[in-house]
Amino acid sequence: MSLAFMPADGLFAGVFSVLPTPFGPTGEVDHESLQRVVDLFIGAGINGVTALGVTSEVARLTERERGRVLETVLQHVNGRVPVVAGASADGLRTCLQYTRHAREAGAAAVMISPPRMPKINSDAVVRHFSEVASANDIPIVVQDYPPISGFAMEPALLVRLAREIPGARTIKLEDPPTPFKISRILELTAREGALDVRIFGGLGGVFLLEELMAGAAGAMTGFAFPELLVAIVRHFRNGRVDEAADLFYSTVALMRFEFQESIGMAIRKEALARRGAIAHAGIRAPGGQLDRTTREALDRVMKWAEAQSAARRVRL
Amino acid sequence: MSLAFMPADGLFAGVFSVLPTPFGPTGEVDHESLQRVVDLFIGAGINGVTALGVTSEVARLTERERGRVLETVLQHVNGRVPVVAGASADGLRTCLQYTRHAREAGAAAVMISPPRMPKINSDAVVRHFSEVASANDIPIVVQDYPPISGFAMEPALLVRLAREIPGARTIKLEDPPTPFKISRILELTAREGALDVRIFGGLGGVFLLEELMAGAAGAMTGFAFPELLVAIVRHFRNGRVDEAADLFYSTVALMRFEFQESIGMAIRKEALARRGAIAHAGIRAPGGQLDRTTREALDRVMKWAEAQSAARRVRL
Amino acid sequence: MSLAFMPADGLFAGVFSVLPTPFGPTGEVDHESLQRVVDLFIGAGINGVTALGVTSEVARLTERERGRVLETVLQHVNGRVPVVAGASADGLRTCLQYTRHAREAGAAAVMISPPRMPKINSDAVVRHFSEVASANDIPIVVQDYPPISGFAMEPALLVRLAREIPGARTIKLEDPPTPFKISRILELTAREGALDVRIFGGLGGVFLLEELMAGAAGAMTGFAFPELLVAIVRHFRNGRVDEAADLFYSTVALMRFEFQESIGMAIRKEALARRGAIAHAGIRAPGGQLDRTTREALDRVMKWAEAQSAARRVRL
Amino acid sequence: MSLAFMPADGLFAGVFSVLPTPFGPTGEVDHESLQRVVDLFIGAGINGVTALGVTSEVARLTERERGRVLETVLQHVNGRVPVVAGASADGLRTCLQYTRHAREAGAAAVMISPPRMPKINSDAVVRHFSEVASANDIPIVVQDYPPISGFAMEPALLVRLAREIPGARTIKLEDPPTPFKISRILELTAREGALDVRIFGGLGGVFLLEELMAGAAGAMTGFAFPELLVAIVRHFRNGRVDEAADLFYSTVALMRFEFQESIGMAIRKEALARRGAIAHAGIRAPGGQLDRTTREALDRVMKWAEAQSAARRVRL
Repeated sequence: MSLAFMPADGLFAGVFSVLPTPFGPTGEVDHESLQRVVDLFIGAGINGVTALGVTSEVARLTERERGRVLETVLQHVNGRVPVVAGASADGLRTCLQYTRHAREAGAAAVMISPPRMPKINSDAVVRHFSEVASANDIPIVVQDYPPISGFAMEPALLVRLAREIPGARTIKLEDPPTPFKISRILELTAREGALDVRIFGGLGGVFLLEELMAGAAGAMTGFAFPELLVAIVRHFRNGRVDEAADLFYSTVALMRFEFQESIGMAIRKEALARRGAIAHAGIRAPGGQLDRTTREALDRVMKWAEAQSAARRVRL
Repeated sequence: MSLAFMPADGLFAGVFSVLPTPFGPTGEVDHESLQRVVDLFIGAGINGVTALGVTSEVARLTERERGRVLETVLQHVNGRVPVVAGASADGLRTCLQYTRHAREAGAAAVMISPPRMPKINSDAVVRHFSEVASANDIPIVVQDYPPISGFAMEPALLVRLAREIPGARTIKLEDPPTPFKISRILELTAREGALDVRIFGGLGGVFLLEELMAGAAGAMTGFAFPELLVAIVRHFRNGRVDEAADLFYSTVALMRFEFQESIGMAIRKEALARRGAIAHAGIRAPGGQLDRTTREALDRVMKWAEAQSAARRVRL
Repeated sequence: MSLAFMPADGLFAGVFSVLPTPFGPTGEVDHESLQRVVDLFIGAGINGVTALGVTSEVARLTERERGRVLETVLQHVNGRVPVVAGASADGLRTCLQYTRHAREAGAAAVMISPPRMPKINSDAVVRHFSEVASANDIPIVVQDYPPISGFAMEPALLVRLAREIPGARTIKLEDPPTPFKISRILELTAREGALDVRIFGGLGGVFLLEELMAGAAGAMTGFAFPELLVAIVRHFRNGRVDEAADLFYSTVALMRFEFQESIGMAIRKEALARRGAIAHAGIRAPGGQLDRTTREALDRVMKWAEAQSAARRVRL
Repeated sequence: MSLAFMPADGLFAGVFSVLPTPFGPTGEVDHESLQRVVDLFIGAGINGVTALGVTSEVARLTERERGRVLETVLQHVNGRVPVVAGASADGLRTCLQYTRHAREAGAAAVMISPPRMPKINSDAVVRHFSEVASANDIPIVVQDYPPISGFAMEPALLVRLAREIPGARTIKLEDPPTPFKISRILELTAREGALDVRIFGGLGGVFLLEELMAGAAGAMTGFAFPELLVAIVRHFRNGRVDEAADLFYSTVALMRFEFQESIGMAIRKEALARRGAIAHAGIRAPGGQLDRTTREALDRVMKWAEAQSAARRVRL
């Protein structure tokens, strides 16, 4: 099982792109655009894709739409890279159902947040992940993104999860300061000898370099220009830290701009529309729409990032 | 339209019971127990029921289960009282779909919270309710329960909703201090002449008397002994305020006990199991289970409330 | 040290009244009214008082005012009961200073919350309490009231504090459901043999009976009619559980009414003004003021509680 | 009055540096280091300084320390630039006292957040600022930083404050997405004709360019290299938008790194220690300390920013 997921050659590391869900002008899912995004990202050299994440507007999809989006992604990816499927739910039973469906459909892993519930606590979170893991033979990516789950998992809890649940040793860490938290987690796991935890950064790649420096295995995020992340991670993992840093520092203005609270999804889609991948940039209500100022600022920063990338032979 | 909902004879006032969703021992929806709860509540004299509310564990139902629960409720109620259907969703499109389904299935109204979204604001909330109202000819109960929606609606916003959206003039107010907030809302609507806003308390009935004193039209809550609420509201609306107060004060120990954060749903189901309405008191994970101490405390306070009720000729 | 605090005769148990800070018509501290409240409460049979708590509006006092309020309380109490002094602060250094001052002035204990800080975690909380305890030879009451501190301490953390810091084994537990959480804490401490943790309920006494049933040592709260709490605790500790329950159930309507979010402090002061203890019921801005409806509701519920108390020979 | 603050020549615009409060090895305030920071910043060309802000660790200062810090700043600045003094407090009375003291001591303005209070609302916020403005003839900078105040002010509320309180028309906007929110506020004020609102960005300068593009008057933040902000704002205000953008994009990696949640203050102090301005980089407990990884990442990004700045003839 874990062979496919964390192969000896390190495939389950690097850059996993969280896919947006493109919509048509009347709001229906646009599967063709979704396929084009998949192709764009795989062409950019990413190591995997993640469907049905927060940036996929999964909270605004119906269950039927969820199923069809995942199907489209799996069919279109067609084994070229592993596919992680979001399976978070407020209830364990629904989470189990999403997980089972993801496994049967061919996903390489599921990504799961602590369930949202007032007064949830560490033991309940462990129980939730344990139940999912014991019912399904599929690796779990533990998503640590407190604004969505409403619960902050301390390093000791993430390590406890990894210790008690062998299938839940990959973390998508999005609780800033992420480099600092990665260091704390790896300090704890180092004390436990054999505990092989794999941490992905997220948050639009805004701290990618520092996350790698702290020991991250890569990034799992919806950034619309994953070529940059791929090149940075590749440099870094091949020991070319200075090149990684130079490329990162000179383009992080773009990651930062895209990753704005509340309008980040809309900016990503706008960028992907400009790249020709998606036909229509709209996001579903009540998600925020872009204004003129934001569009102009996007124009400017995109041009900057393209020039910087080109100068460093990364083609956006 | 609003005739059915707010009829001249005042039917859409009084006590609306939010229905739990009973589950069997393996967690599947137990429709027979649900029917028995409906009968118990209607037998208790309530004025309406609400399906698919927070206390119905709606967040832990699949969409298919939602649909079937609502069907069971509507069929079994069979016109005896109006049925309000929860239709909250994080996305407008899903909310519209739930609303349409509720209307087609025969619900008398839908109950809707502001959509959950980081950085949501007043204008987005108004837009959300407006879109629902303009697409569907069914009254909307605006649910004001900040712990679930993550957004606190100030009195001025609730009045703005009522002013701009004639179909959204019923409020399920659950943002404490509720009697105080009811007074503020009614002060504002009084200034606007014709603005007929109808406010229901909730929160387990713990402030029912004071909400009525402040001008509430009734209560919409999942309290497991709605006979008490019915009797209190009836006394109050017939001018017997002292009787209402006496009954309320001498039994509110029970409302208070039931309405505990995080374990309230489990206590309600336990009470309904003891009343013979539901076969199995379990709630879906990760919802909290009861411990021995809580069960013993429930025994004691139930006995107290039964004695007090009997002494006042309310039969639980 | 702990002898004075947790004497063999059980004095540091029972009812500790958190004192309000009365203000005059122009907002200055009214020390004479404060003295009258102290006398009223001691006359009611309470086992201790707490100054500079949340309900004392400590967040709206200057440091000089804090010092003078504590002085007034200590001088006027004059050893009749132990005095706990609030010493919470966002910074450790300030907390240490408050604690030192409280000890020098003669307080029997300090009450401390986790410091407010974005992203605080369990280790930082333990460090905070450890530093205070190692610098000052005075017992610490750990206040667990998440709405103020912004941090929810899980049972395991509270037990870890008690284990690692002998001076911090008294908890003022105000994180609902409190009876349930008390049971969880005592379960954990029972496993540790000698770990003698003492838990006080709070939250206006609204769950006093159930907290006692779960193992609480008493209540520490600002309820304006502590006679009731005293009588309930006394009945309970003397094995007269039915009498405790009868008195509690028949008067909890008052505790519940007083303990309303945002206006609770104002209601308490209004009640104490009606009892003749304080000259002026105002609270400091931006604290909420009472409206007519709330005053009328207070009239009514006070009369009820007085009648019920009198019938059970408790004199308010 | 407002002449000094918003002079015809536009001095109250541009870059206002929020000053850290340096501490010695045992935690006492290090006034000499503070003076060196003032000189460093004024030498960098900033337009004003702000004392007693969040980044000044004001929450961990005693009242006496607050007073002495402000005194040191005012004396040492000695009129070279205007000084804004933080005056936020949970209570109005304390806020008034801080404001009076700031005015008497010679501050050019005070900076005030909505007071922290559960269930605060728009009217209470307006009242708070009104009271301060009517009691003190000193301009108010309205700080909009929800993580600290716990209350998000919508654009309409900020405009209402500006309309009703002429002294409160400067906003320190730190509620992301800030460029978007600036646009919304200026749209609203544009409709009101004469309403001259002045908006400063904050948040470490991470969105400075986009804030300026949206209409911001400058930035008020604690970034440890204000030369960069000064050069960017100067380019922008002189119409050299491309130069502004080039400098911003090529150095924002540094702003971003410094402005990390929970450890940002510690990084700032570390940077100022490396710049020779402060003797000791420590922050007061429970504030987070830096780890080795963060220090190494700071080394790297500082070198990058220095090289980029030098290439563009900005000397750090």
